[in-house]
Amino acid sequence: MTDENYMKIAIELAKKGRGWVSPNPMVGAVIVKNNEIIGTGYHKKCGELHAERNAIASCTKSPKGSTMYVTLEPCCHWGRTPPCTEAIIQNEISRVIIGTKDPNALVSGKGIDILKKHGIKIKTGILQNECMELNQVFFHYIKTKTPFVVMKYAMTLDGKIATCTGESKWITGEAAREHVHMSRHTYSAIMVGINTVIADDPLLTCRLPHGKNPKRIICDTNLRIPSSSKIIQTAKEFQTYVATDSEDTWKIQRLIDSGCFIIKTPKKDKHLDLNALMIKLGRENIDSILLEGGSTLNYSALSSGIVNKVQAYVSPKILGGSQAKTPVGGIGIHRLKDAFGLDNKKITVIGEDILLEFHVKGGE
Amino acid sequence: MTDENYMKIAIELAKKGRGWVSPNPMVGAVIVKNNEIIGTGYHKKCGELHAERNAIASCTKSPKGSTMYVTLEPCCHWGRTPPCTEAIIQNEISRVIIGTKDPNALVSGKGIDILKKHGIKIKTGILQNECMELNQVFFHYIKTKTPFVVMKYAMTLDGKIATCTGESKWITGEAAREHVHMSRHTYSAIMVGINTVIADDPLLTCRLPHGKNPKRIICDTNLRIPSSSKIIQTAKEFQTYVATDSEDTWKIQRLIDSGCFIIKTPKKDKHLDLNALMIKLGRENIDSILLEGGSTLNYSALSSGIVNKVQAYVSPKILGGSQAKTPVGGIGIHRLKDAFGLDNKKITVIGEDILLEFHVKGGE
Repeated sequence: MTDENYMKIAIELAKKGRGWVSPNPMVGAVIVKNNEIIGTGYHKKCGELHAERNAIASCTKSPKGSTMYVTLEPCCHWGRTPPCTEAIIQNEISRVIIGTKDPNALVSGKGIDILKKHGIKIKTGILQNECMELNQVFFHYIKTKTPFVVMKYAMTLDGKIATCTGESKWITGEAAREHVHMSRHTYSAIMVGINTVIADDPLLTCRLPHGKNPKRIICDTNLRIPSSSKIIQTAKEFQTYVATDSEDTWKIQRLIDSGCFIIKTPKKDKHLDLNALMIKLGRENIDSILLEGGSTLNYSALSSGIVNKVQAYVSPKILGGSQAKTPVGGIGIHRLKDAFGLDNKKITVIGEDILLEFHVKGGE
Repeated sequence: MTDENYMKIAIELAKKGRGWVSPNPMVGAVIVKNNEIIGTGYHKKCGELHAERNAIASCTKSPKGSTMYVTLEPCCHWGRTPPCTEAIIQNEISRVIIGTKDPNALVSGKGIDILKKHGIKIKTGILQNECMELNQVFFHYIKTKTPFVVMKYAMTLDGKIATCTGESKWITGEAAREHVHMSRHTYSAIMVGINTVIADDPLLTCRLPHGKNPKRIICDTNLRIPSSSKIIQTAKEFQTYVATDSEDTWKIQRLIDSGCFIIKTPKKDKHLDLNALMIKLGRENIDSILLEGGSTLNYSALSSGIVNKVQAYVSPKILGGSQAKTPVGGIGIHRLKDAFGLDNKKITVIGEDILLEFHVKGGE
């Protein structure tokens, strides 16, 4: 087994924390002694032990003299739990192989320095890209204090998100729709515009067995949300934020009584100022948002520069219709040279559909 | 080397005829004796020798007792050249391994029967899918007598073929645009609507070095084509068909004088009857068409059921714009269950862009 093989196992362990560790990173650790894996662990949930301590606790033999593979630099500061560097030193682990350094200014490089001072051998950068990818949300949030925003949509091969009559259930097949629920589980919150609530009356929960429900964010400039909508009816059960510029105290009180949290957000060019909203949501510990907006909100979000990733499901269908809606509407970019640029493509076949993922250029 | 290995070589040889053999199929042949390739050949150009005879002619040793690998069942009838079965028998080849049978009713199975009668051992269906794919145009044309139509478009990840101001040069990168010129080389003709001619004034030639220029077909119901357009100006140089319902004899005469061929085509629902047009073009020996239509023509073509394949280039850009054009327009399908269905997906990364190819369900 090579370093890369063991790190791969640590990455797979880390992924088990997906959806549960926010706003912490997903981390996995594997402890190896004489070419034998003697312990494994991962960070299971925010507030609980880190991967390194779980791995040490699981050891079937003494970890003294062993090598630890860990996807992220061990922490050296007191947070919700004691520093992992202490546990590594106390258990006399001799080598630590690290996927990627911690971008957190409190930690970056310091954990490594402490371990080195105690004579522990360090190797960094094993499967670094995979380890970075694993925690793109964490790395973004720690640097910007605003949520990592993933714009998700499902369209036909001719770029339609609904028929010309508005029918949109369903563009994609079952496997792709289940995959979306995995994203709802993964990210902290889901955001839609008021038009989507009025048109579809969605619940916006995660329907995977044992899945985590995302917090729900509704962009509703003028508080048009119907009190009969599923969102309002279930706001006591599933945490719901309504972002609005409205001063209508009566409506606001009714929403609060229904269980909603109101986020007062200024307007900019007739729409909610999404940059201001992201700062406020970041303060609410929301590290990531799955944006399932309609075409108007999607265009506003891209124009505001808040979108970090695009997740486009393409279905093997053609609908036509010069008036049928497309994933991104609004006024639109006038010149091709000013188009929103995308890179880092990833192509995945999901059942009959194709998932195209890109990072938005110029983002964190 | 297995049968599949030799057939793979025959397929690669066959592809060298791409663009030149129409309306014949692309065929490649490899002759093997004592595990040594002693001859190879392919069909180079319509009217010239078939692959089997070229392979025999190239043999470095006597083909007596050898095995021939050929992508398509050898012909047994007199066409432009004498039957290949005769050459195989005369040269005492002992085994013939065939990729796929010939769908041509004049030949299908008969070539095999004749060879068997002469004691030659036959094996069929080696890499059959690849051999079928190689000649999907030929198989379609021989069965239907109408051209195989490939709808090609380039769009952004949000389904736009131009900005909201109409700018469309260029949606895709250089590699994808060069790939389109390979398609212009491959297919017999290229078809666009009059709106594309008026908006873009294109030349519609193949710009690959040593590439073959496709015949040009303009769908122009009311003969609006400007005599100053590049198409008309070059109609004596590059074969040009104008399909029209117009009775304007003066305009028609001017187009004929410019070098155009007029295809009188009846109307159906205000547009040219594309099914009638395909029958007429089939009679002109046009076996395949690259449809580079705008969104209106694309919708008409799909609605008429003439499209066999969709070739969609997706560029890593987002443009937005609720009024920006999409690849398929027209009235559009009302109900999702009635969408044009696609299958047989093929995904290819071309430079920065992604090519998504599908067969249209229900076609030949």
